[in-house]
Amino acid sequence: MKITIEDVMHKLLQTVPRLESTVDVLRAGDPKMEVRAMATTFMATHEVIEQAAASGVNLLITHEGTFYSHMDQTDWLEHDAVYQAKQRLIEQSGIAIFRLHDGIHRYQPDGIMTGLIQALDWDKYVTEHQRVVSLLTLPAMSVKEIAEHVKRQMGISFVRVVGDPAMSCTRVGLLAGYRGGGAVAIPQFGNEALDLVIAGEGPEWETPEYVRDAMHQGKKKALILLGHAESEASGMKALAEQLAAAFPTVSVQFFANKPLFTVI
Amino acid sequence: MKITIEDVMHKLLQTVPRLESTVDVLRAGDPKMEVRAMATTFMATHEVIEQAAASGVNLLITHEGTFYSHMDQTDWLEHDAVYQAKQRLIEQSGIAIFRLHDGIHRYQPDGIMTGLIQALDWDKYVTEHQRVVSLLTLPAMSVKEIAEHVKRQMGISFVRVVGDPAMSCTRVGLLAGYRGGGAVAIPQFGNEALDLVIAGEGPEWETPEYVRDAMHQGKKKALILLGHAESEASGMKALAEQLAAAFPTVSVQFFANKPLFTVI
Repeated sequence: MKITIEDVMHKLLQTVPRLESTVDVLRAGDPKMEVRAMATTFMATHEVIEQAAASGVNLLITHEGTFYSHMDQTDWLEHDAVYQAKQRLIEQSGIAIFRLHDGIHRYQPDGIMTGLIQALDWDKYVTEHQRVVSLLTLPAMSVKEIAEHVKRQMGISFVRVVGDPAMSCTRVGLLAGYRGGGAVAIPQFGNEALDLVIAGEGPEWETPEYVRDAMHQGKKKALILLGHAESEASGMKALAEQLAAAFPTVSVQFFANKPLFTVI
Repeated sequence: MKITIEDVMHKLLQTVPRLESTVDVLRAGDPKMEVRAMATTFMATHEVIEQAAASGVNLLITHEGTFYSHMDQTDWLEHDAVYQAKQRLIEQSGIAIFRLHDGIHRYQPDGIMTGLIQALDWDKYVTEHQRVVSLLTLPAMSVKEIAEHVKRQMGISFVRVVGDPAMSCTRVGLLAGYRGGGAVAIPQFGNEALDLVIAGEGPEWETPEYVRDAMHQGKKKALILLGHAESEASGMKALAEQLAAAFPTVSVQFFANKPLFTVI
C-alpha cells in the first residue's frame, strides 16, 4: 500500500489537539508524495540531509528548525551563503522535511521525554509525568554519580553542573530542551521539593544562578545541563522505532547528529 | 564632600541617552543615601551581597538582575524560599543595589566590551567597534590557540567550541553576554567576513548549528562560547576602576563571582 507524506503527518499528529499556532510544518515537499524511505533526527543539519538523501530517504522528520531559529523564518538569511547552500541541497535532493516539535512535546507523556528516560534506563524511577517536567525518585546517588551515569548511557562527553558534585540526590526533575530556563525550571525546585534538575539548556543567569544562591544558603539543590541536542535526540530516535512499527512496509532510520561542542 | 547614590547613578548614566524602558533601576536603597563604600559585580549573588555588606559597602552595582531573570520581576518568586532568604539579606543589610546593564552597554564604545578586550590584552587588534560587536584582526592563530589564550588571560577553566580547533583565524568578532544568539551573531559572519565569533552565550540551535553547517560546507567558521559571566565580568571590573577615579574619596571594590559551572 502506498504511504504518502500526508499519511505519516496524520499518524504523527493524530493524538495531538490542533494547535492555533505551531512550528510543525512541512518545509519542503508535497504532502501527496509517496514516502520511499523516511528518517528522524534531532536537527536537519546539512550533513544529515546529505546522509538521508544518499540513503534514499525522501521524508526527513526533524525536531528543531532547519535554519537556526525556533520560528525558522528565512527572510533574514536570504543573502547568507550557508543558508543558500543548504536551501540548494534541499531543492536538488527533492527531500521533504517535516518538523515535529510542538506535536511530540504534546504526546501524553511527552514523546521527547519518554525517549530521554528510556535512554537513561530510568523508567522504573518515574513517579509522575507532568506537562513539562517528569519527576523521578532515584536511589540515593551523588550529583557526580548521576552525571557519570547520564554520560555513559547517552554516550556524551561532558555535562555542565551547578552545585556540589558530592551532594546526594533522590528527588529529580527532568526537563528536555530549552525548559532549563528559569520560568519553567525554578518553580520545580520548590513545588516538587527537588534536589536536582536535569535539563537541556537555558539562560545562564536564570536557573544556574538560582541554584548557586540556594547552595550558598545551605539548601540542597543542583543542576545538570545535558545540552539541548543531547536531551532531545533520544526522543527522536524512539520515534523512528514507533514509525517503523506503524509503517512496516517503509524503511525508517534515525540519523544522530555528531556532538556540537568541544570543551577546551 | 558627601557622595550620594544619586550622584553615582548620575555619573554612571551621564553619557547615555534616556531610555524609554530599561532594567537599570535602583532595586533597594534611597537615592539620597550617602555612599560609604561601593562595589561592582557581574551578578549580585547571595554570597556577593554578604561579602559587600561585610566590607562596609552600602552601594552594590550589578550587571545582571538579582532575581534570576532579565526583567528581574519577583512576583512569581514570592513563595520561593531562596528568593525570600535573599530578599531578607538585602533588607537586613540595608545595602542599595543598582543595576547597570542597558547603560553600560550603551557607552561608546560599550563598557562591557572594552573591559573584555582589555582583559584579553587585545586592544591593539581592534579594527572597529560597532553597536553590538567589536571587530578584531588578530595575527593568525588557531581556534585552539585562541581558546587557550582566552582561558589564560581570564582565568577560566573551560570554553565551549564549535568548529575545527586547528583552523587558523584572523578576522574575529567579539560579542558579550547573550549576543551569541543567532539574530545578532549569524549576520556578523557574512557581513564582516569573520572566521570566528567569540561570545558569551546563546541558544544552542542558533549560532552553533549555523557554524556546524558552514563547516560542513567547507566554509572556514568557528565559534567560542566563553560563558555569560566570563564575557561580562571584566567590564564590571573595569567600571570599578573608573568609579574609583571619578570618586576618589569613596572606596570602590570589584567582587568576582566564582565560576558557575563545573564540567563533568
